[in-house]
Amino acid sequence: MAPTSLQDKIDAHGNTVEMLRNSQIGMYVYPVVAPEFQNWRNEQAAWRESAVLFDQSHHMDELIVEGPQATEFLSYHGINSFSNFELNRAKHFVPVTPAGHVIGDHIIFRESEQKYILVGRAPTSNWLMFCAAWGKWNVRIRHDPRSPSRPEGERVLREHYRYQIQGPEAPKIFEKMNGGPIPDIKFFHVDWINVGSKKVQALRHGMSGAPGLEIWGPYADKHYVHSVIMQAAKDAGVNLVQCGSRAYSTNTLESGWIPSPLPGIYTGDGMLADYRQWLGADSYEAAGAIGGSYVSENIEDYYVNPFELGYDFYIGWKKDDFVGKAALEKIKAEGAKRKKVTFEWNRDDVLKVIASGFEKGTPFKWIDFPQPNYASSSADRVETEDGTMVGMSMFNGYSWNERCMLSLGVVDTSVNEGDVLTMKWGEPETTKKTSTEPHEQTTIRVRVSPTPYAAEARTSYADSWRTRR
Amino acid sequence: MAPTSLQDKIDAHGNTVEMLRNSQIGMYVYPVVAPEFQNWRNEQAAWRESAVLFDQSHHMDELIVEGPQATEFLSYHGINSFSNFELNRAKHFVPVTPAGHVIGDHIIFRESEQKYILVGRAPTSNWLMFCAAWGKWNVRIRHDPRSPSRPEGERVLREHYRYQIQGPEAPKIFEKMNGGPIPDIKFFHVDWINVGSKKVQALRHGMSGAPGLEIWGPYADKHYVHSVIMQAAKDAGVNLVQCGSRAYSTNTLESGWIPSPLPGIYTGDGMLADYRQWLGADSYEAAGAIGGSYVSENIEDYYVNPFELGYDFYIGWKKDDFVGKAALEKIKAEGAKRKKVTFEWNRDDVLKVIASGFEKGTPFKWIDFPQPNYASSSADRVETEDGTMVGMSMFNGYSWNERCMLSLGVVDTSVNEGDVLTMKWGEPETTKKTSTEPHEQTTIRVRVSPTPYAAEARTSYADSWRTRR
Repeated sequence: MAPTSLQDKIDAHGNTVEMLRNSQIGMYVYPVVAPEFQNWRNEQAAWRESAVLFDQSHHMDELIVEGPQATEFLSYHGINSFSNFELNRAKHFVPVTPAGHVIGDHIIFRESEQKYILVGRAPTSNWLMFCAAWGKWNVRIRHDPRSPSRPEGERVLREHYRYQIQGPEAPKIFEKMNGGPIPDIKFFHVDWINVGSKKVQALRHGMSGAPGLEIWGPYADKHYVHSVIMQAAKDAGVNLVQCGSRAYSTNTLESGWIPSPLPGIYTGDGMLADYRQWLGADSYEAAGAIGGSYVSENIEDYYVNPFELGYDFYIGWKKDDFVGKAALEKIKAEGAKRKKVTFEWNRDDVLKVIASGFEKGTPFKWIDFPQPNYASSSADRVETEDGTMVGMSMFNGYSWNERCMLSLGVVDTSVNEGDVLTMKWGEPETTKKTSTEPHEQTTIRVRVSPTPYAAEARTSYADSWRTRR
Repeated sequence: MAPTSLQDKIDAHGNTVEMLRNSQIGMYVYPVVAPEFQNWRNEQAAWRESAVLFDQSHHMDELIVEGPQATEFLSYHGINSFSNFELNRAKHFVPVTPAGHVIGDHIIFRESEQKYILVGRAPTSNWLMFCAAWGKWNVRIRHDPRSPSRPEGERVLREHYRYQIQGPEAPKIFEKMNGGPIPDIKFFHVDWINVGSKKVQALRHGMSGAPGLEIWGPYADKHYVHSVIMQAAKDAGVNLVQCGSRAYSTNTLESGWIPSPLPGIYTGDGMLADYRQWLGADSYEAAGAIGGSYVSENIEDYYVNPFELGYDFYIGWKKDDFVGKAALEKIKAEGAKRKKVTFEWNRDDVLKVIASGFEKGTPFKWIDFPQPNYASSSADRVETEDGTMVGMSMFNGYSWNERCMLSLGVVDTSVNEGDVLTMKWGEPETTKKTSTEPHEQTTIRVRVSPTPYAAEARTSYADSWRTRR
């Protein structure tokens, strides 16, 4: 019988790492939105120089959690403090396993006393749906999964449209959209603004350092809202550039959020064992792929904790209890072993890899622009000169704004900014992944840089690869 | 008042070249089909090594021409001989202007005595629709325009699905699909085969040198037919790879067909003047973009004739008359001045261009892989050492199979295979095209090679750039 749960699938394969490294699901796709509206270079430039319009309606799961225990339920399953979670506020919600490993993350909005909307990748939605049932919580959950990766001309509908406008000139557009100055919304707070004749909710955001708003509403309003935004930009004289799916996913490289940690749910007893029986064999967790040069026999070696991703400052230590609290207390006491950094890739080594695509024989792993990521979760091995592994590169891409390849990942705390390390690029053996072509493994030097990277680039440009050749 | 016809638009701009070089329509898109199913390198390799499935349902116009004068009408508006146009046969149909300039091309199928289906880019469909009305022909025409470039989740329907299966192992799949050996269909002939429980028409094709069939039928059957094909490949043990839109358009580089000549309709009196009044201001011809380094004041300098594209061998000289016959006779008598070739781009120069994307400041025009084409029609200037223009590069892309950048274009007949010329890469000035980022112009050496290129690569590989460095 074909496996029906993640656990069945793990049992059939024997080795979880081998199972995920050979997934045939293909590239992790940002679906439905056109690859390019202008061209991905201009689209990247727009969020730094003028303003960009992200259509985020399709690539994320949405979960609505309502009911008498909604707050208690979410507070118990996220690391975040909920003490300051007033209405019309948003948070970066992070659930961890009882062992303290990150499962994923969502943006969570509090819509009313008993109603929250959560938006993000599948692992967090799946986990919360399971937890609600497993813990017998008095909550109602509505799940609107992300759009299909390859709809091939079939119609795609969502509950909500979701647009984000970012960039130094974005405020001029907001004023036109709203028909007057918009309220002074604090970072990660929500207020109501006008978009033409509609009242819509707006989250103050700023993924790429520049000011921004994210607005959402019923999907049926999408075309109207889109038209109002485009007209407002025109009226404001702002070069608002629509961002396609090729450029979209690279915006996080400059702002430093890692979108794709491997959910730490493949091991562990008790509720985790039950979870793996509950998760379908076609779920994100069961069907997804691990890509990259780092091959460990132990799936736990791919897990990360909130300290490593820089999420520790909003852990709600004062909460009576939450899933993973004890484990996190232990990690805190011992001190986190790794920290989040940006890796700036050596230009000459990147060009060496590209050049191999112009030679007969088996080249190095192709670097696809602007985003060479080829799996749901990536893990490239980062080493010191003597081959000791001291880090893991987890999300990569090219930044036209910085004119370089960057990746986000974690390194041992002993590693310092400015250190030059070596990243293994490409996989050591041929896997069944359909997202990879036959290739040889090689190395790329990477310079350890702060996260977020953008500011660094402005202040210490002279010390970068590009000027030190 | 906003212009309503191509002619209005030309009049408003004054200069047609300047108008088209500043079009803001963006990239010419291969719509609806996912960018990648596996990855574009594997997808390209599949048509050389195993088998590839092209979904051609969306990127082409379809025109059905029926009626008592269907044959006479089409014969009069195409250069092709119709004397050998039996039922169930296909041709590469090429209409030219009265001045002998290529308008475009379609694949034309004869379905019955009075019924033809034509498939291809818009310029040929537009021209035929105009001609039918202008000449008062007794034909019925049904037009199914290509799918929208950016449907953004809206449903897209066509009259017909259209699949092509190509590659050395394709025949094994045909036999499984058909439930037994398929008829021995001659090149560009059509016969009926089974696809599971459906009887479908199949055209014997071979775009990339390897054997292939193109099948089509009612769009409602698309999912069923797709399933049968995939299952047949599985049963035959063939690695059939679905080809996404990124790889699709590059397959012509190896086979040598130029898909995007500029239609020669922007000048000329009489029916052409009437045509420009008839064509909408949002038509392909009015809205499209010219990209590339070649800037001439005279739009006619972008036109090509059938001799230059290698289409002269099927001109129906014996036909009493057809549009452009006199002009073509004159060109024939004088001898064509240019011929079609493949340009093999110099590896080191390509890498120089790529490297500039890793430097501060304004880089050279980005080479996007696998297809750097950024306009509806491309024209890059090809020169001898002393700067004399001797050719025009018209369609470019990277071939994983050949591990090099190739382009198709025309050169003066004085140019010989093996000659190394210089292509100007990038535009001399900033245009309003949204498909281009700010860039500097540079040069790339190109080696003149035969068309189609694929065979050449096999026979004279040692003499190629890649081994002569």
